[in-house]
Amino acid sequence: MLALAGYPLGFQFRFYDISAEAPAGDLADLVVGSYEDQRALSRFVEGLDCITYEFENVPVGCARFLSKYLPVLPSPKALEVSQDRFTEKNFFRNLRIPTPDFIEVRSRVALGRALNQMGFPAVLKTRRLGYDGKGQLVIKKNADIEKAWQALKTQPQILEQFINFDRELSILSVRGRDGKIIFYPLVENQHRDGILRLSLAPAPRLTIELQKQAEAYATRVLEALEYVGVLTIEFFQVNEKLFANEMAPRVHNSGHWTIEGAETSQFENHLRAIAGLPLGSTQPRGYSAMVNLIGTLPSIKNMLALPGTHLHLYNKALRAGRKLGHITICAERRKERDAQLAELKTQINLS
Amino acid sequence: MLALAGYPLGFQFRFYDISAEAPAGDLADLVVGSYEDQRALSRFVEGLDCITYEFENVPVGCARFLSKYLPVLPSPKALEVSQDRFTEKNFFRNLRIPTPDFIEVRSRVALGRALNQMGFPAVLKTRRLGYDGKGQLVIKKNADIEKAWQALKTQPQILEQFINFDRELSILSVRGRDGKIIFYPLVENQHRDGILRLSLAPAPRLTIELQKQAEAYATRVLEALEYVGVLTIEFFQVNEKLFANEMAPRVHNSGHWTIEGAETSQFENHLRAIAGLPLGSTQPRGYSAMVNLIGTLPSIKNMLALPGTHLHLYNKALRAGRKLGHITICAERRKERDAQLAELKTQINLS
Repeated sequence: MLALAGYPLGFQFRFYDISAEAPAGDLADLVVGSYEDQRALSRFVEGLDCITYEFENVPVGCARFLSKYLPVLPSPKALEVSQDRFTEKNFFRNLRIPTPDFIEVRSRVALGRALNQMGFPAVLKTRRLGYDGKGQLVIKKNADIEKAWQALKTQPQILEQFINFDRELSILSVRGRDGKIIFYPLVENQHRDGILRLSLAPAPRLTIELQKQAEAYATRVLEALEYVGVLTIEFFQVNEKLFANEMAPRVHNSGHWTIEGAETSQFENHLRAIAGLPLGSTQPRGYSAMVNLIGTLPSIKNMLALPGTHLHLYNKALRAGRKLGHITICAERRKERDAQLAELKTQINLS
Repeated sequence: MLALAGYPLGFQFRFYDISAEAPAGDLADLVVGSYEDQRALSRFVEGLDCITYEFENVPVGCARFLSKYLPVLPSPKALEVSQDRFTEKNFFRNLRIPTPDFIEVRSRVALGRALNQMGFPAVLKTRRLGYDGKGQLVIKKNADIEKAWQALKTQPQILEQFINFDRELSILSVRGRDGKIIFYPLVENQHRDGILRLSLAPAPRLTIELQKQAEAYATRVLEALEYVGVLTIEFFQVNEKLFANEMAPRVHNSGHWTIEGAETSQFENHLRAIAGLPLGSTQPRGYSAMVNLIGTLPSIKNMLALPGTHLHLYNKALRAGRKLGHITICAERRKERDAQLAELKTQINLS
């Protein structure tokens, strides 16, 4: 999606992936190698002007190696912070951004102590490589403790306060090379089995106060990291208060609606930012809903027969739990968007 | 632009071009060969499902050769009709679609006779390979006749009535494999030196009657050719009447605004049509203006700094008179669009 947004701006692309099956290979040069393969990485940087990433688990060592040759934006520091939940939460805490309470856990004994301190329910999470609900388990009662510990004990963890949130929101922010910062409106995200299913943009019942809160927190993160590009922060909303859950130093699934639903897409703005070009308007165009297609694909004919459907397939092999594509619905009026969404949900069995 | 619209639908692409410099090579497989190179053409068709074209001067022989292997859509017949102004105008006439009067010219004597019959002013045009105002000369008085004849005499010609039109309009229509036909609203096109500079969509002061007239004519063409894909017809408007000027059996420059300005772009709808998928809504999203970038490129930074600017560069080498890209401006209100357009015109010296 970055390449699709970038070709019209006159950019050319080369991708690096550990798999030769990477979908980007269809529409740009693809260099295949491990993250440690310095020879492949050196071949990759040849002739490029700038490097970015759209996967936050690129090893920091790899990003730092590349940054010896070329600007890597957002900086490897942003990767480093967001790859470790403990580092990330401490980072938020140091910036006075509210988060659920959290405690580092290094042993079974420490877990017991942390639970005594925090109380039930709490969430045990691996510090690294968690995504789409993987690497975390809720502990509601004594009987859950040992199960969670056995499942996750091979990796360093944190215990987090379980927040009974009203809903999840995310903010997409963009910081240019010149330090200019812009924001998209907050988006409401609905998950199932830990995987994002649906984003509504702008978030329903969005108040100026909520938006301001999110923008203030994002600004602190962007400035602390001298960040360049799109940054996403996911929040839990409890009453009128936001708690930062996590950040992603990249374009984000909850921003896919911007392709049709905003003046400038997150992909184009990410590229404008890292290329030092003026950022584009983040103004929404009507009301959008983005629905992920997960695991299997409904009939393409049926999906395209629904009015207002914008289909985006990623050309990935089918696999349970995998995001294979998404559909965006845009309408001038909220009611119209909701009616189309209801029809789409029936179509793709998303109740 | 076809590939950029098609990847999200899950399509894959291979392009054929006589030049290895073809911009499409950046984002898809590119097979290079002459239109007569049957070996290269055979390599090209390997593994494809369907072939289309976005240049109406692909030789009909080439299209027919390919159609022995695979569906070529729109059919080679559509190419054949639109490649020859005399055939094309006769085709319109047979379908009772009004056109400027026209007479075939095969000799200097025949030109004199035709002018006697038609009167001044008239336009001498080559039958084939005319585009962007090339291959045509206006004859206003006796002194112009010899000049026009000398300039164009190496090729077969037609003499056309010079119509003092109010404006030029074009209609983009789409016919699916199942015969379903849909239309975008008429667009107003402004040319300079024979090259399209500006399209306004929907056309200002568009009446239901005008739209109906254009749709009725397009329908006759689409059905007569059992056409599949996007077809564009350019009209001269004189009072409330439309005269067909020419048709293009392809996505068209005057439809580039649909990328941001319509629910479904002409590129996506062309692909949906030839792939046998349901067609997408042609509903405009607000008011659009499309400005061509011709010959040279203004500063990209300056262009992107204008609010609401959607830049599309084609990655072609600079050359006088060449279309190097376009900018689309979209706004919810016409006034806002016009204000942005005025600013853009200053920026790129388009008065």
